Amino acid sequence: MNEQEMKKWQCRSDLALEAVEQMVGQVNEASQEGVKYEEDNIKGLKVTCIDVAPEAVERVGKKAGRYMTLDTSSIITHEHDQLTVAMEVFAEQLSKLLKHRDIKETDTCLVIGLGNDHVTPDALGPMVVDEVIVTRHLYELRPNEVDRSYREVSALAPGVMGMTGIETYDVIESLVKKVKPDFLVVVDALASRSITRVNKMIQMTDTGIAPGSGVGNKRKAVDEESLGIPVFAIGVPTVVDAVSITSDTIDFLLKHIGKSLKEESRSYKKLVPFSSARQIYTDEDLPSPELREQFMGQVGNLEEEEKRQLISEVLTPNGYNLIVTPKEIDTEMEDLATLISNGLNRALHPNVQFS
Amino acid sequence: MNEQEMKKWQCRSDLALEAVEQMVGQVNEASQEGVKYEEDNIKGLKVTCIDVAPEAVERVGKKAGRYMTLDTSSIITHEHDQLTVAMEVFAEQLSKLLKHRDIKETDTCLVIGLGNDHVTPDALGPMVVDEVIVTRHLYELRPNEVDRSYREVSALAPGVMGMTGIETYDVIESLVKKVKPDFLVVVDALASRSITRVNKMIQMTDTGIAPGSGVGNKRKAVDEESLGIPVFAIGVPTVVDAVSITSDTIDFLLKHIGKSLKEESRSYKKLVPFSSARQIYTDEDLPSPELREQFMGQVGNLEEEEKRQLISEVLTPNGYNLIVTPKEIDTEMEDLATLISNGLNRALHPNVQFS
Amino acid sequence: MNEQEMKKWQCRSDLALEAVEQMVGQVNEASQEGVKYEEDNIKGLKVTCIDVAPEAVERVGKKAGRYMTLDTSSIITHEHDQLTVAMEVFAEQLSKLLKHRDIKETDTCLVIGLGNDHVTPDALGPMVVDEVIVTRHLYELRPNEVDRSYREVSALAPGVMGMTGIETYDVIESLVKKVKPDFLVVVDALASRSITRVNKMIQMTDTGIAPGSGVGNKRKAVDEESLGIPVFAIGVPTVVDAVSITSDTIDFLLKHIGKSLKEESRSYKKLVPFSSARQIYTDEDLPSPELREQFMGQVGNLEEEEKRQLISEVLTPNGYNLIVTPKEIDTEMEDLATLISNGLNRALHPNVQFS
Amino acid sequence: MNEQEMKKWQCRSDLALEAVEQMVGQVNEASQEGVKYEEDNIKGLKVTCIDVAPEAVERVGKKAGRYMTLDTSSIITHEHDQLTVAMEVFAEQLSKLLKHRDIKETDTCLVIGLGNDHVTPDALGPMVVDEVIVTRHLYELRPNEVDRSYREVSALAPGVMGMTGIETYDVIESLVKKVKPDFLVVVDALASRSITRVNKMIQMTDTGIAPGSGVGNKRKAVDEESLGIPVFAIGVPTVVDAVSITSDTIDFLLKHIGKSLKEESRSYKKLVPFSSARQIYTDEDLPSPELREQFMGQVGNLEEEEKRQLISEVLTPNGYNLIVTPKEIDTEMEDLATLISNGLNRALHPNVQFS
Repeated sequence: MNEQEMKKWQCRSDLALEAVEQMVGQVNEASQEGVKYEEDNIKGLKVTCIDVAPEAVERVGKKAGRYMTLDTSSIITHEHDQLTVAMEVFAEQLSKLLKHRDIKETDTCLVIGLGNDHVTPDALGPMVVDEVIVTRHLYELRPNEVDRSYREVSALAPGVMGMTGIETYDVIESLVKKVKPDFLVVVDALASRSITRVNKMIQMTDTGIAPGSGVGNKRKAVDEESLGIPVFAIGVPTVVDAVSITSDTIDFLLKHIGKSLKEESRSYKKLVPFSSARQIYTDEDLPSPELREQFMGQVGNLEEEEKRQLISEVLTPNGYNLIVTPKEIDTEMEDLATLISNGLNRALHPNVQFS
Repeated sequence: MNEQEMKKWQCRSDLALEAVEQMVGQVNEASQEGVKYEEDNIKGLKVTCIDVAPEAVERVGKKAGRYMTLDTSSIITHEHDQLTVAMEVFAEQLSKLLKHRDIKETDTCLVIGLGNDHVTPDALGPMVVDEVIVTRHLYELRPNEVDRSYREVSALAPGVMGMTGIETYDVIESLVKKVKPDFLVVVDALASRSITRVNKMIQMTDTGIAPGSGVGNKRKAVDEESLGIPVFAIGVPTVVDAVSITSDTIDFLLKHIGKSLKEESRSYKKLVPFSSARQIYTDEDLPSPELREQFMGQVGNLEEEEKRQLISEVLTPNGYNLIVTPKEIDTEMEDLATLISNGLNRALHPNVQFS
Repeated sequence: MNEQEMKKWQCRSDLALEAVEQMVGQVNEASQEGVKYEEDNIKGLKVTCIDVAPEAVERVGKKAGRYMTLDTSSIITHEHDQLTVAMEVFAEQLSKLLKHRDIKETDTCLVIGLGNDHVTPDALGPMVVDEVIVTRHLYELRPNEVDRSYREVSALAPGVMGMTGIETYDVIESLVKKVKPDFLVVVDALASRSITRVNKMIQMTDTGIAPGSGVGNKRKAVDEESLGIPVFAIGVPTVVDAVSITSDTIDFLLKHIGKSLKEESRSYKKLVPFSSARQIYTDEDLPSPELREQFMGQVGNLEEEEKRQLISEVLTPNGYNLIVTPKEIDTEMEDLATLISNGLNRALHPNVQFS
Repeated sequence: MNEQEMKKWQCRSDLALEAVEQMVGQVNEASQEGVKYEEDNIKGLKVTCIDVAPEAVERVGKKAGRYMTLDTSSIITHEHDQLTVAMEVFAEQLSKLLKHRDIKETDTCLVIGLGNDHVTPDALGPMVVDEVIVTRHLYELRPNEVDRSYREVSALAPGVMGMTGIETYDVIESLVKKVKPDFLVVVDALASRSITRVNKMIQMTDTGIAPGSGVGNKRKAVDEESLGIPVFAIGVPTVVDAVSITSDTIDFLLKHIGKSLKEESRSYKKLVPFSSARQIYTDEDLPSPELREQFMGQVGNLEEEEKRQLISEVLTPNGYNLIVTPKEIDTEMEDLATLISNGLNRALHPNVQFS
C-alpha cells in the first residue's frame, strides 16, 4: 500500500466530521488551513459546521463544501418531546444550508431516498421518502388550484443496484432530466467509523453523495458536478464494522488507563475493577508512550490508521469484519425517519404552518 | 351522459375477458368479427386466449392485441403443489406470448412493478419486482464473467403518483431511454368487475397497460405506441367495487330462481330455503322476462350496464361504492406474488434450470 | 330453519346498534321496553348509548348491558387533528363506561388484543396491544419505585386458534387466573352487517365478547359470567360480507327510487341518470309496497332477514359470499389502532398527563 | 467481585459450547470429568453434542443435560439447496434429542416462541411459531376426523415482559397448566460471546432456558424443574456485544501475530501488511507470554475473563457496549426461521411425508 492508497483508504468514512477528526489527529493545528470548524449548542443539542475549501480537499479526503452535523445522542428512543425538539433544530439547520446555497422558496425539489427498504439499517432513504409531502403532480395536473405555499416537490426511492440491475446514479440522472428539479435532496444511511455515532448523528451537506462509495466499487457520485444542480445529502450512520468497534475500544482502553492512573496514581493490575462512573475521554487522557507500551505493547503506540489496518487484516480475510447495527435498529430507524421526514418537510415548505 | 361516454364507461374493466363478456352479452354472435376466443384446459387449469383485431377495438373497448388469462380459482391458499403447477402453466403461457411477439432469448427486458407497496391489494407489482432475478448490472460491470444463460433483466417499482409527485409514465419513459431494454414487462394489480374473479385470475397481454386508467384521470398508456418497444402486461384483479358485487348478485339471484323453477317447478315463495348445493349458473338459467319482472320488477329486466349505472348512482354519491378486497388479502397476495415472480423468472430465463 | 334458529341467525351482527336497528325495523315502538337508546353529538361526532335490560335480551339478541358507539365516519384518513379529537371523545366515553361499572382508579387491568396480526383487517387487537402502556411488571419488580399515577396494566395478544391450536378463551382464562386483574379490556375487529359502518365506528361495551362468534363455531364467551370479573370490549367493524353489501344496496335502491319519485313525481325509467347529489336515506323514503313490487318485484317486498337469507343462499354455496375489507385497509387500521390505543391509555391512566 | 460472582459472570453465554470452551481454556484435560464432548460431520455440517453431568454443573456453569449444536456457517444466505440440507440435519438431530429423552410419537407438544416480534434480531421465536403446524384444536374439536399421523401440537408467542407487563415464565406456566402438554419446545434468539457464531449456529438442548437470563434480572427458568415436563430449547445467537467483538479481535490479533511469526520468522513491525489469505487460528497459534507482552503489553497476557471484564468496564459506563447484530439481519432471520420451523415440523410430525 503506497501513500496515495493509504490516503484514499483513510477517507472511507462517510462522515466529514470523522474525516476531519482523523486529520486533526495526524496533523498539527497550523496545517488546518482551508478547513473551518464551528460548534454550537442549540436547544441542548450539539451542532457542528465544517467548511472544506477546495485547497483542503486532498488533505481531508472530502469534497469541498459545507458539512453540518446534528448530534442526537442525548435523545431517548421514542421520547416524543425530545424528538420534536431535535426535529426543529434539524429543520432550522437544513434551512440554513439551503439558504447558504441560495435555494429560493420557489425552487423545485426532487428528494431521492437511497437504500434497500428490505434491509432495516439501509432503509432510511425509502422510509423518509414515504413521509415526504409531494406536490409536483398537483402543480402539473391542477396548476390553478394548487396551494402555492407548498414548494413543488417530488420524491422517489430508486432501490439498490442488486435489486434493480440498474446503477442508482443512472436512475437518478434519467429522472432529473425528466423532472428538471432546481435542486436535489438525497437521503441515505451511512457507515460510521465509530461505535459512538451509530444512529446518533445526522449529517447534512451540500456536496452530494457517492452511493455505496465505501464498498469498493467505483460508483458515479450524485453531486452538482455530475447532475448540474445543487445536491444536498442527508445521512445517518446506521452501521459500523468490527474493525471500528475494536479500534475504538483499544483507544478507549488506553485513555481509560491513562485517566485512571492520573487520578488514582496506582498500577493497572490493581485497577480491576474500575469504578463504573460515566467517563468522557479526551486526547489528553492518552498516557505516555511508555505507559501505552506497558499496557498494550506495540499495538498501544500504533497510529490510528495503522491500528485499523492491522485489525482489518486479521478480521477481513476470515469473514469476521462483520458490518453490524444496534439490536434496537427497528425502533431507532422509526425515530430517525420520522425526525428527518418531518424536518425535511418543514425545511422544504417554509411557508406552511405545521401543527 | 351521452352515448360515447356510456361506451367509455362500459369499458372500465381492466380485464379483456370481462370486456368481451360484456360485449357478448350485448351483441349477437355474428358481430363477433375481429375477436378470436380460445379456451383450453391445461393441467386442470382453464386458460383463455383472446385476440382482438384492430377492427374490433371500438366494439370491445380494448386495444388490439392478445389477451391471455389463467384461471387460478381452483387453487387453495398456501397449497404448495397446486401453486407450483399453476406457476408452471403461467410460465408456459407467458413464454408463448413472448414468442408470439418474436421476443428472442437474447432480448433485454425491463420489468416494471406498478402500484403502492404500502397498500396490500395494490402491492402486487412491487412484490413481484422484489423477487425478479436481475442481471443487467452484471452484464454492465462484469461482461466477461456473467452467466449468459440468464437474460439481461432489470426491474424497478416506480411507486405511485400520489407518493412520488411524478406521473408513473414519466418515470418509466425516462428509465426506458436510459436502460434501452428490448421489451418491457409491466406487473400491476387490477380492478375486476366481478366478485368471482378477485385474486382468482392472471391476465397476460401484449397491449401494455394504462396505469390507474379506471380512476378517471387521463393517464398516458404504457404501451408500444408510447414507448416504441413491445410492452407486456401481467395483471391480477385484486379489488372489486360494491356496484359490481351487487350487480353480480342480482344476476346470480335471477339465474338461481330461473334454475330452481326449471328444476323444481315451484313458486319462489316456497323456495326459501333453497338447497345449499354448489351451483354453476349459465345464461340459460335466466328466467323469462315475465318471471324476472315477477321476482325483481323493472330492475330484473335492466341491461347489465343500465343495472350497474343505476346501482352506481345510488352508492357513489354517498361514498358507499367501496372498493374492497378479500379479508385474506395478505396471504393471497403472497401466493400470487410468488407464483408470478417465479413464473416470470422461468419465462425470462428459459435456459436456466430452476430447481 | 325453525323460528328459534332464525332468531339466532338474525343476531349475527357483532354490533348492538345493528341488532337494535334490526329489531326496530321489525317491531313497533311500544315493544321497545327494556332497551334504552340515547344519541348525542360530542365535538361533532355522533355518540350513541344503548342499554339492554335483561328482559330485552331475547328480543334484541344481545346480552344485557351497555353498548356505546362512536361514529368516526366524518374523519379523513391520516387527518391528525380530527383523529386527536375523536381519540379524546373515545377516551371520555370509555372512562364513562368504566365508571358506569364502578371501576376504581386503583383497579388493575388486563388488556387482551384478539385477532391475527398477519391478517390486516383482523389485526386491530394485536396492534392496539402493541401500543398499550403496561406497568404490571414495574409494580411486581420495583413496587417502591413505580409511579402510581399509572394504573397497574398488563396486555397480551393471544393469537388465533388456527395459529396456536388453543381456544383463545382458554389462553385468556389461564392468564386471568395467574395475573388476577380486577377487570378485563378486550379489543377485537368485528364484522359489520352494513357497508356504511366498515372502519367507521367504534363500539364499547361492558358485556364482553364472543370471539369468532359469527363464524358458526360454538366458542366460549369472554365475559363476566365466564371469568368472574367485568369484561369490557372495544371493537371496530373492519369487514363486511357480500350478502350485506347487496342487501344494503337493494335497500338503498328502493329508498332512492322512493325519494326520487316523491321529489320529482316521475317514473323510474326516466330517472336514469339520477342526480349525483349526496343523499341521506331514511325509512320514510321507502316507497309503497306497490311501487316496491313494480321496481324490484317480490324481492322488493321481502323482510330484511328474508332478503339476506335469499342472497346468502345464492352466494354462499358457490363460495361467492366473500368477506371483504376496504382497499385502504392498511392506512385505516393504522389510524384506528392509534386512536384506540391512545384513547385506551388515557382512560386507563386518568391521572397521567399525556402530551 | 468475589470468586463466586466471577464464576457466575463467566457463565453469561447462552451457548453451552462457549461455556465449555471457556472452561477448556482454563482447566486441564484431566478435570473434564462430567463433560462428554462429541463432534461429527453430517452432510458437510459440523454437529457437536455435549453432555454435562450433574457433577460438572458448577464447573461449566451450565445445567446438567445434553447440548447439541449445528454449525451453519457454511450456508450462503437464501441458498435454497444448502438450507434444505441443513434443515434435514437439524430435524434429524432434534429427533435424536427427543428420543434421548424418551419422547413418544403420541406425546403432545407445546411450542413457545420467546422474544419480541418487533425487534428483528429478537423475533426468532415468534417467527418460528408462525410456521409451526398446530393440530391441538383439531384433536379437541374433531377428535374423530383428525389425521393422527400428526402429533398433537399447539404453539404460542407470549411476547416480552416489557410489552406485556407479565413475566414470560408466568404466561408459560399458566398455559402449561391449561394445555397440559407432555413436553415443551422453546425457541429463542440468544446472545453470543463470539462474533464468529452470530446467526451461524443452532443450539438444541433438553435443559430448558432462562429467558433474558443474561440481562441481569433474576428470571425464573423455563425448565423441567419448574414446569414438571421435559423442556427442549432451540436457540440461535443473533446478537453479540462490543465487548465480545473486541475481546475476540484481540485474541485473533495475538494468534495472527503468533502464527505469522512462526511461519515467517520476522518481526511484527515488518509484518504490515500481512497476507490476506483466510486463516484459521488455534490455541497453538498464541505466541509466548513474552511476545504477547511485546505486542499487546499487559493486556496481551490477561486471562480471557479478565480481558472481557476490563473491556466491559471501559465500554459499559459510557453506553458504548452496544449489543449489535449483522446488517443483513432481516434476510438472515428469514432463512433461520424457515430452517428451524420446517425442521421442527419434521421432528414433531415424524409420520408425515413432507414434500
